[in-house]
Amino acid sequence: MIVEAYGAHAGEKPLEPMEIIRRAPGAHDVQIDIAYCGVCHSDIHQVRSEWPGTLYPCVPGHEIVGRVSAVGAHVVDFQVDDLVGIGCIVDSCQNCEECDVGLENYCDGMVGTYNGPTPDAPGHTLGGYSQQIVVHERYVLRIRHPEAQLAAVAPLLCAGITTYSPLRHWKTGPGKKVGIVGIGGLGHIGIKLAHAMGAHVVAFTTSESKREAAKALGADEAVVSRNADEMAAHAKSFDFILNTVAAPHDLDAFVVLLKRDGAMTLVGAPATPHPSPNVMNLILKRRSIAGSAIGGIPETQEMLDFCAERGIVSDIEMIRADEINEAYERMINGDVKYRFVIDNASLTAL
Amino acid sequence: MIVEAYGAHAGEKPLEPMEIIRRAPGAHDVQIDIAYCGVCHSDIHQVRSEWPGTLYPCVPGHEIVGRVSAVGAHVVDFQVDDLVGIGCIVDSCQNCEECDVGLENYCDGMVGTYNGPTPDAPGHTLGGYSQQIVVHERYVLRIRHPEAQLAAVAPLLCAGITTYSPLRHWKTGPGKKVGIVGIGGLGHIGIKLAHAMGAHVVAFTTSESKREAAKALGADEAVVSRNADEMAAHAKSFDFILNTVAAPHDLDAFVVLLKRDGAMTLVGAPATPHPSPNVMNLILKRRSIAGSAIGGIPETQEMLDFCAERGIVSDIEMIRADEINEAYERMINGDVKYRFVIDNASLTAL
Repeated sequence: MIVEAYGAHAGEKPLEPMEIIRRAPGAHDVQIDIAYCGVCHSDIHQVRSEWPGTLYPCVPGHEIVGRVSAVGAHVVDFQVDDLVGIGCIVDSCQNCEECDVGLENYCDGMVGTYNGPTPDAPGHTLGGYSQQIVVHERYVLRIRHPEAQLAAVAPLLCAGITTYSPLRHWKTGPGKKVGIVGIGGLGHIGIKLAHAMGAHVVAFTTSESKREAAKALGADEAVVSRNADEMAAHAKSFDFILNTVAAPHDLDAFVVLLKRDGAMTLVGAPATPHPSPNVMNLILKRRSIAGSAIGGIPETQEMLDFCAERGIVSDIEMIRADEINEAYERMINGDVKYRFVIDNASLTAL
Repeated sequence: MIVEAYGAHAGEKPLEPMEIIRRAPGAHDVQIDIAYCGVCHSDIHQVRSEWPGTLYPCVPGHEIVGRVSAVGAHVVDFQVDDLVGIGCIVDSCQNCEECDVGLENYCDGMVGTYNGPTPDAPGHTLGGYSQQIVVHERYVLRIRHPEAQLAAVAPLLCAGITTYSPLRHWKTGPGKKVGIVGIGGLGHIGIKLAHAMGAHVVAFTTSESKREAAKALGADEAVVSRNADEMAAHAKSFDFILNTVAAPHDLDAFVVLLKRDGAMTLVGAPATPHPSPNVMNLILKRRSIAGSAIGGIPETQEMLDFCAERGIVSDIEMIRADEINEAYERMINGDVKYRFVIDNASLTAL
């Protein structure tokens, strides 16, 4: 089926309306009419060829929510009209150690929601800046939030699971002191999640102006990381720090805030390297620096249910599809609280 | 009591004979006549002021074995003639979260066996290149190896526990694939320990000439890390890599050999930073880079007992105290298999 979409024909070109083809649902496929799609920083990196290997036309978008409009003959868990979501994963090998334990995000054959290999035209996957998407049932998430919150649920599909998975893996909960570095698309949800998990949450920001906002999001404390005295007061005290900042920065400033056996996990990869971390800071307290990539399908469902039960959604600003280029510029300037979401109904009239 | 020792009066001077004072044993002290003392790379860094804050006179040595020659009135676990060892720790605060769980090595008040603060003259601790040492019973280890192995036990007190502790902490055992980077003083014991714990052990060396030696030590495989094809064959396959190399090197070459959730732990701190590790390699498989410092007193005893039961000792080359300056030069050139040990009886005649 031909559907309307918004994408780019080259890295240096703005996004524009285009028509793309979606396959007819196979036996295990779910066809989704997309209601909203969140706008992730990865979208910008990929569509502008700031990351290598971008294939064009490129239609970004992997924070997808909508309604099921058709299902294949063998699909049993979903039916027409269900509220569902698609995150960063639309396929994987389904036959490896990672897939076997529901960590499809670490499968070497994971297919991303855009720019991934697919037998469908044009040979690479096209994302959620479009009217419709067709995905194998294994990668479809159920949304149990009230429909009125649907747009604000969209960012949970990437920003939500990217923070939820490491927070859970490193055992965030009551009695734990957890830091969230960066209060943006990822960090603002990280604060809400860590707070809901019962941890003592400290938000780190470079901006005095975000201090109160961080507390409003659920942080018990907010620290301006440029202030050495404020930082020193938290030395050797954190069980876990989730670092959402992709810009190159001094990791040591945060590593020294970890207690013995503490870990700092990075979920953003800098375009140029961070200054090399001081190994002695790791040795003297058996600390770790780790990384984490989104999350598996079962834990994405767990995260969505966790958020639905607690009324957790993203703070969003809704835009029309034809405002996406402007939104990208605002994101680059940090001018969004905290996530843009495209109203995909705006694609219809283009 | 005045005893003979070997140390330096300044960073640029060679080590030479000197007399030092040991305190009379207090109620909880154990006085030890030192039989042998291993020679650790840290000794060189400290005595030559390559690390900051060296106090002179400096008497290095923290791989100490010998016999108890006196005990304080309240000492119950040790008696005269017992075979005992002293490692890197001779005191700690005994009243913190770390001390409470037997991880004195991570206590902020840990006192090193040399160059640590002490009320004894000359105001800093003096190490094992000496005839005798007096230490609080808490930091005295029992040696259950046959006396004939005593000299070769000495390096276990630092090199042994520095490798044992992270191998245990990161759950080395049957079914695990474990890498040991560097086949020197630490690495050669790391190979023996990881093999004894039941892991599949792969040794990494930069030197083709060490390949067979690594297998003789207990490695199942030995990889020359300069050989890209050999390295690539091990991609994404390790549960844990213990990296004993302190010289700056490319950490990414080893990180990519870790499987999902694998960790590489560094036990050496480079004088100048390693090239900054690639964050994406951490993110894509939830890998970690960590550090580890020696080990606590209970786990040092556990390590000694583990080694005694299995006949594990260091491969050593015995020297007289007056050969120490020459031995340092050979260590710097990597010309030792694998640890020098001072015969402290040689101090008597100086």
